[in-house]
Amino acid sequence: MKATLILVALGCTLCWGQAAEDCKPSVLNIPEAKYPCVYPDNRAMFRVVAPDAQKVTVRIGRGFDMTRGPDGVWAVTTTPLVVGFHYYSLQIDGATVADPSTMTFFGSGWQNSGIEIPEPADGDYYRAKNVPHGRVSQQWYFSKVTARWRRCFVYTPPSYETNAKARYPVLYLLHGWGEDETGWYTQGHVDFILDNLIAAGKAKPMIIVMDNLNAVKPSESAALFAARGLVPAPGAAPAVRGGTASPPQGIPAAGAPGAQPARGAVPGGRGGGFNLSAFTDMMFTDLMPAIEQTYRVLPGPQNRAMAGLSMGGMQTFTTALTNVDKFSYLGGFSGSCGGRGGTFDPKTTCGGAFADPAAFNKKVKVLFLGIGSAEGQGTRTFSEALTAAGIHNVYFESPGTAHEWLTWRRCLNDFAPRLFR
Amino acid sequence: MKATLILVALGCTLCWGQAAEDCKPSVLNIPEAKYPCVYPDNRAMFRVVAPDAQKVTVRIGRGFDMTRGPDGVWAVTTTPLVVGFHYYSLQIDGATVADPSTMTFFGSGWQNSGIEIPEPADGDYYRAKNVPHGRVSQQWYFSKVTARWRRCFVYTPPSYETNAKARYPVLYLLHGWGEDETGWYTQGHVDFILDNLIAAGKAKPMIIVMDNLNAVKPSESAALFAARGLVPAPGAAPAVRGGTASPPQGIPAAGAPGAQPARGAVPGGRGGGFNLSAFTDMMFTDLMPAIEQTYRVLPGPQNRAMAGLSMGGMQTFTTALTNVDKFSYLGGFSGSCGGRGGTFDPKTTCGGAFADPAAFNKKVKVLFLGIGSAEGQGTRTFSEALTAAGIHNVYFESPGTAHEWLTWRRCLNDFAPRLFR
Repeated sequence: MKATLILVALGCTLCWGQAAEDCKPSVLNIPEAKYPCVYPDNRAMFRVVAPDAQKVTVRIGRGFDMTRGPDGVWAVTTTPLVVGFHYYSLQIDGATVADPSTMTFFGSGWQNSGIEIPEPADGDYYRAKNVPHGRVSQQWYFSKVTARWRRCFVYTPPSYETNAKARYPVLYLLHGWGEDETGWYTQGHVDFILDNLIAAGKAKPMIIVMDNLNAVKPSESAALFAARGLVPAPGAAPAVRGGTASPPQGIPAAGAPGAQPARGAVPGGRGGGFNLSAFTDMMFTDLMPAIEQTYRVLPGPQNRAMAGLSMGGMQTFTTALTNVDKFSYLGGFSGSCGGRGGTFDPKTTCGGAFADPAAFNKKVKVLFLGIGSAEGQGTRTFSEALTAAGIHNVYFESPGTAHEWLTWRRCLNDFAPRLFR
Repeated sequence: MKATLILVALGCTLCWGQAAEDCKPSVLNIPEAKYPCVYPDNRAMFRVVAPDAQKVTVRIGRGFDMTRGPDGVWAVTTTPLVVGFHYYSLQIDGATVADPSTMTFFGSGWQNSGIEIPEPADGDYYRAKNVPHGRVSQQWYFSKVTARWRRCFVYTPPSYETNAKARYPVLYLLHGWGEDETGWYTQGHVDFILDNLIAAGKAKPMIIVMDNLNAVKPSESAALFAARGLVPAPGAAPAVRGGTASPPQGIPAAGAPGAQPARGAVPGGRGGGFNLSAFTDMMFTDLMPAIEQTYRVLPGPQNRAMAGLSMGGMQTFTTALTNVDKFSYLGGFSGSCGGRGGTFDPKTTCGGAFADPAAFNKKVKVLFLGIGSAEGQGTRTFSEALTAAGIHNVYFESPGTAHEWLTWRRCLNDFAPRLFR
């Protein structure tokens, strides 16, 4: 008992030296990597080879200083972590880098490490099961608004290939700040969630379009580029399969004013900035026509939904609340046009979109507001204010989770069955 | 002139302080990142924020030690680099990590940084142009041989969606050592290369299947896992979209005996190992049936090709030379069953596959051997020996390139037009 207490008091700096049978490798590790690993009580152990370093820290929410072992391997065991997916990084003598032991995930504008703190109780819904599987396809299209090629990913349900005549409703699903169009199918497991819901008869087969929030007009792009001292590179190739692919004429990725720099940014060098200024225009002018020409899509607002997480939820409400004739289903996962305090006034809140509850309820069949319970009460308060104002809405709270992907997987799992009924 | 000479003599350690208008950001950088950048003479400049580090090195082929600036930013300009795609890493006080300024690419068993040294003269063929675009789709299938879910990516040509009855020939295309099923569509630009060839009428529309070379039987998997001291984690989720996805019953990724550890491996921790022992069995038992059931595929060996790069080229010859009744087209890009020295004897070389030239030539319509000119003469010698032995074959040499993706993009661009004629 005393020994246990001492270990706890030491912040478990000795734990790395112990046999770690109970510490399971994170499922996000590169093949065969044993670390980071997760204990049954959700503490995680990290190990990093950095023989000549003076200070190594794991930053996962907060910092955990690592301790150097005699073999030059630094290690630390954290306090119990919240369940779900977490981006994290290492600081090695002041350099912020990804842990080479994990796959990387685009968040905060760069390729972070990731760790999954599993929740055995309910994780089944986002895992590969022995059910028919849909596809996630990479789709390129040229955007006239931004004057460049863009990439989105498109989930098609299992029956899409076997039933060559069938048409399907569409959900447009957005990522969050600093992420990109890969987020929902890598961090989010959109495909397994839908495959499982469809196989169980809980959700209607649907197409899900996952695009990139960044969208800026070329004039603005050039000006921003110049303002940041970046030199356009004519003829640059769209080699990276991100949302900032270069156009045929070679305009490079645009900067964003006031963009929050990515962690570890090189001064004057990189940003990870975000500019959504042309997103709504791009979506209606380029993305939706491209999807409706390329995929077998059911027409009309009753077959169209839009949702997003965090900044993507805010963008969903920005885009859709001024276009409620185009969408019958709206979802904000940890992000919407409300819930961040202030007085709710149906005449002015969210641009007055809720001023006429009867008209709104007639057009929007499902207004979904999801949040993790660890994120605070703002969304619940917003939902209750909407209800009091006569606006039908669904409030979903993910128990025990924070502003991360487990919250958003659960949101999707609850939202998708409500669509296209 | 003297100043120039001094700068050269200093290894250009001062260059980072200069205005770098001529240094264009690599197209593989994260959005907005200005560094690494590439000069017109193919020198590259790297910058890394590591204020408290004692030594920082860029490893790209060889090491280039960086110099610390007064702002804590380390910088170096390399000597001119070979054109093409290069994996690279940083060493920060002994820790081998990816450069946070670039997208990451799965190679050597982990998520490396990448830089592209462009070749304006011929890069056009692998870039997005204003032509119809095919799709790259993520396809999950369950492998009975390995007892787990596996993922491949499948390119379908532009007409696949518009012509719902058409059937297509199939090329099975493999990555190299330490890479995975994402390689050909991220590093390799398989989609743009085929889109452009098809639009120009140079290649027949075809389906291209890109799988993962790792394939090991569950019995072997469990034994290897135990031998490496790794603890299976029942119920682990296939959260990472790699080729080592966990099966429904939760057998984790397998180790590989004698596998070369990934750079920066944690002792006893991670490997990045490779085990191809069950690949051929898996391909015929699981992959090909899954593809032929799921996609509109033309039947018969005359509609089937197999190719791969480096270790994937070796695997192609291992699989296909003992199954020449199944494939009419074979390609080895910097890898085959020959070319690494020794005496060529048609009776014994490559398992005696070339012992009967007439029979071989009748079955294999195209035998393609590609190599970068900087990789040596072994493949040319092998091709000449085959020709002397009466085996029809195509030798393709990529000028000025090494064992990297520009060689393999060019190989594919030359190989694909020869298929299914």
